[in-house]
Amino acid sequence: MEQLTVERWGMLELSLPGKTAGNPFTDYEIRGRFTGEKEDVAVPGFYDGDGVWKVRFMPSFTGEYRYTVSGSFADAETSGVFTVTVPSEGNHGPVRVKHRYHFAYADGTPFYPLGTTCYVWTQQPDERIEETLRSLKAARFNKIRFCIPPKHYDYNLGEPRTYPFEGTPMDSSVLTKENFGNYDGKSKGNHFDFTRPNPKHFQHLEKCILALQAIGVEADLIVMHPYDRWGFSCMSRAADDLYWNYVIARLAAFRNVWWSLANEYDLMKAKSADDWEHFGNLLVLKDPYRHLRSIHNCFAFYDHTRPWITHCSIQRQELYRGAELTHEWRKQFAKPVVLDEIAYEGNIQHGWGNITGEELLRRFWEGAVRGGYPGHGETFLNKDEILWWSHGGQLHGESWKRIGFLLDVLQAVPGHGLRYLPAEWDSVCAVPEDRKTAAETGYRLYYYSFMRPSFREFYFDDDTPWRAEVLDTWNMTVTDAGVHRGRFRVDLPGRPYMAVRITKA
Amino acid sequence: MEQLTVERWGMLELSLPGKTAGNPFTDYEIRGRFTGEKEDVAVPGFYDGDGVWKVRFMPSFTGEYRYTVSGSFADAETSGVFTVTVPSEGNHGPVRVKHRYHFAYADGTPFYPLGTTCYVWTQQPDERIEETLRSLKAARFNKIRFCIPPKHYDYNLGEPRTYPFEGTPMDSSVLTKENFGNYDGKSKGNHFDFTRPNPKHFQHLEKCILALQAIGVEADLIVMHPYDRWGFSCMSRAADDLYWNYVIARLAAFRNVWWSLANEYDLMKAKSADDWEHFGNLLVLKDPYRHLRSIHNCFAFYDHTRPWITHCSIQRQELYRGAELTHEWRKQFAKPVVLDEIAYEGNIQHGWGNITGEELLRRFWEGAVRGGYPGHGETFLNKDEILWWSHGGQLHGESWKRIGFLLDVLQAVPGHGLRYLPAEWDSVCAVPEDRKTAAETGYRLYYYSFMRPSFREFYFDDDTPWRAEVLDTWNMTVTDAGVHRGRFRVDLPGRPYMAVRITKA
Repeated sequence: MEQLTVERWGMLELSLPGKTAGNPFTDYEIRGRFTGEKEDVAVPGFYDGDGVWKVRFMPSFTGEYRYTVSGSFADAETSGVFTVTVPSEGNHGPVRVKHRYHFAYADGTPFYPLGTTCYVWTQQPDERIEETLRSLKAARFNKIRFCIPPKHYDYNLGEPRTYPFEGTPMDSSVLTKENFGNYDGKSKGNHFDFTRPNPKHFQHLEKCILALQAIGVEADLIVMHPYDRWGFSCMSRAADDLYWNYVIARLAAFRNVWWSLANEYDLMKAKSADDWEHFGNLLVLKDPYRHLRSIHNCFAFYDHTRPWITHCSIQRQELYRGAELTHEWRKQFAKPVVLDEIAYEGNIQHGWGNITGEELLRRFWEGAVRGGYPGHGETFLNKDEILWWSHGGQLHGESWKRIGFLLDVLQAVPGHGLRYLPAEWDSVCAVPEDRKTAAETGYRLYYYSFMRPSFREFYFDDDTPWRAEVLDTWNMTVTDAGVHRGRFRVDLPGRPYMAVRITKA
Repeated sequence: MEQLTVERWGMLELSLPGKTAGNPFTDYEIRGRFTGEKEDVAVPGFYDGDGVWKVRFMPSFTGEYRYTVSGSFADAETSGVFTVTVPSEGNHGPVRVKHRYHFAYADGTPFYPLGTTCYVWTQQPDERIEETLRSLKAARFNKIRFCIPPKHYDYNLGEPRTYPFEGTPMDSSVLTKENFGNYDGKSKGNHFDFTRPNPKHFQHLEKCILALQAIGVEADLIVMHPYDRWGFSCMSRAADDLYWNYVIARLAAFRNVWWSLANEYDLMKAKSADDWEHFGNLLVLKDPYRHLRSIHNCFAFYDHTRPWITHCSIQRQELYRGAELTHEWRKQFAKPVVLDEIAYEGNIQHGWGNITGEELLRRFWEGAVRGGYPGHGETFLNKDEILWWSHGGQLHGESWKRIGFLLDVLQAVPGHGLRYLPAEWDSVCAVPEDRKTAAETGYRLYYYSFMRPSFREFYFDDDTPWRAEVLDTWNMTVTDAGVHRGRFRVDLPGRPYMAVRITKA
């Protein structure tokens, strides 16, 4: 008999055949228990259609484990043993908060989230999905935000591949660009059974999550959102609970999952603060792996100090400032600040989707040098109306090419992560997060944003030899500007988007 | 005998010989009284050196006038009559506040101040002064801010042509770029007599004011400032009063004079709020022509609601926002908002002097569409270290070429001036200041700033025919986008800095 093995932070999936009479989603349940030397985890499973029940488990330790699986449809338990092996290359485990404002994988490797958003890329044809994955890899994005339910919105009037529940949708041929906003989750013609999730919807989603995992990209899953014409945004509490439990049972064992409770939670008029607290607590109780949890605003921030929230998922609230406020938000919430929406590079009619690549990259740097983690998006209006922000596919802009350079700069920061040092009014000065590291290394990163000094002067002390480097964040060059003592001057090219990096020589 | 005439808002200057023994600036005085049908104005005169006393008068009405001039050095009064004729072309009188937030000349002609700053252009060699005047005209600037005292600052270490007082300055050959900040108004080696103004300094200044008048440019005179190594910024109250009285007696009769009490008043550590109130009140009492009065900040705004302040002279307080707050400042102070410093186009090391032409022009439009009046400046670091911001000379940037286009747009607004209409979050909508005009004309000006929509949609009503025009504020083009009814779409080029102007067809 072959031995059952799974790697640490990999996923063990056990299947049982069961009954299909009645409503298998509500009439029966399946549970698993996984016991190793250092953990003992009980998880609910789920019905995966076609008479098959499944239980999934992500081990957090190596070594020998036992499992027991029992279903309310079967008399006997199934049990056995398995071995958890060391993780394979590229598997660092799930991402956790570290040093209060930053992130690291479970194995301690720092993680600097520089992500993008493609709300319903998983709902596109296979070729576009492949294209999206290639684009993500080319841009070196390491996080992507996307929705579990389908999306109804401007440029998103078509039907998705699948729905998260069994049923049939309203006739979408009546929709026009002009009147799409008149339809909502209560529109007539939708016939969905909110007691019967659609396994095919989730099986496909999981394939996509695994494809992301294979290229080192975190899946920031938007579990609920307001862009709806089918009724998924305004179900009853009982239906919501069934949905949440099903989602958690299926997806929690994927190591690269993050939970975004909602996109623009405050636009979901059918939900109240009580609902969000309920879903947040439900996640805390039901997800044994403690994946990251956030909730994303349209207008007012959710109270990110709530204990179930691991990090701030920020949509900027002002037209003119956003990433520039990162250090204030860090102070306000005492949690990592992920800038999940700071406007998208593009040219659509909406002000959130028509900034230049230069401006988006500037916002990336403004956020990053303040110790936050900015997110990308693209909304170029092409003839095919395939917009990266929703559909994925190809990247058309300029900012994505320059994200990897920022990632390299962040990875080279001594210690782990940056923080904002109030220094000069006309530059942003960043130092390593750790005070000891900052003092030891003398590392300083000055960012000049839209300003374009032709030189800057520096003075730290009389004796230390300081190396200066000029970073062109747009052209992605690092130029040695020599080693200096005392008061010194660094010449700059008089272009915007420059930075100066100072280190002990 | 030839009849004495002067045009309305012109300047009548009467001279008397007098005594020169002792200190003619303090030992004697001269007074004039000018009486017409509609006004009766008594003004102090001043000693102009070489034994000559002068009295100046700007008549506000046409018709027959009498004058009387008497000096404490002479036994008899001099008196006579003169005729005030209609103003010549281009003479619209002094600028006043109109419609609370805007400006008009005394003859009612609207005045839309779009100015620049050249702090000490009058202190430069004659050829550069001529060059400055040509540059002002080419750019269609209609206001310029500059200082009465000379300036000591980065890029301003040289000696001026003249000093406002008799005396000799410290040895400036000891100054270096690195240590210029260590010198202040109390530096040793200065020997100025603060009881003896230097008529030559003012005679030259007046030539420059008249040269501005000839090309339709208002002279926004900075009477005090902190950029000093000679002691002019930290005189006694008595010396300040002598200076202020001398300045008013000499300059108030020039119709194009505005009073800026100080530049960066809050950096003048030797002066207190009491001093500024005193100087403000002194101006109200002593300037019979009620020229515009303002005071300009570095950090905190002066309380622009003070009754002697006619308009806000604003230096922006934040790195990222400035002109974007114009409508809030209008509300806060209920006075015109003149944005006298929103950073300069250039490439020097200081953050206030190294933004792009695009960014400065954007700030111009952000301010203008909110019903404010932005100001220009240039700080390009050339080999000759002649920077427009201080020295005048040639303009090197890109924004100045585009100020005239904005002026044309403002002059074409129905009624007089714009106000901000809160409409859409992702554009700035401006309507005519007057509510009746706004309703009558249907005029709307939408500005898209750094955003670059490839189209925008509009709906006002079902029946009115609306003309749409696309304004490219950078390329200075106005493109007809047709006449529309009901819901309509205006295509845009997907570039930043565009505006759409809507009018009743």
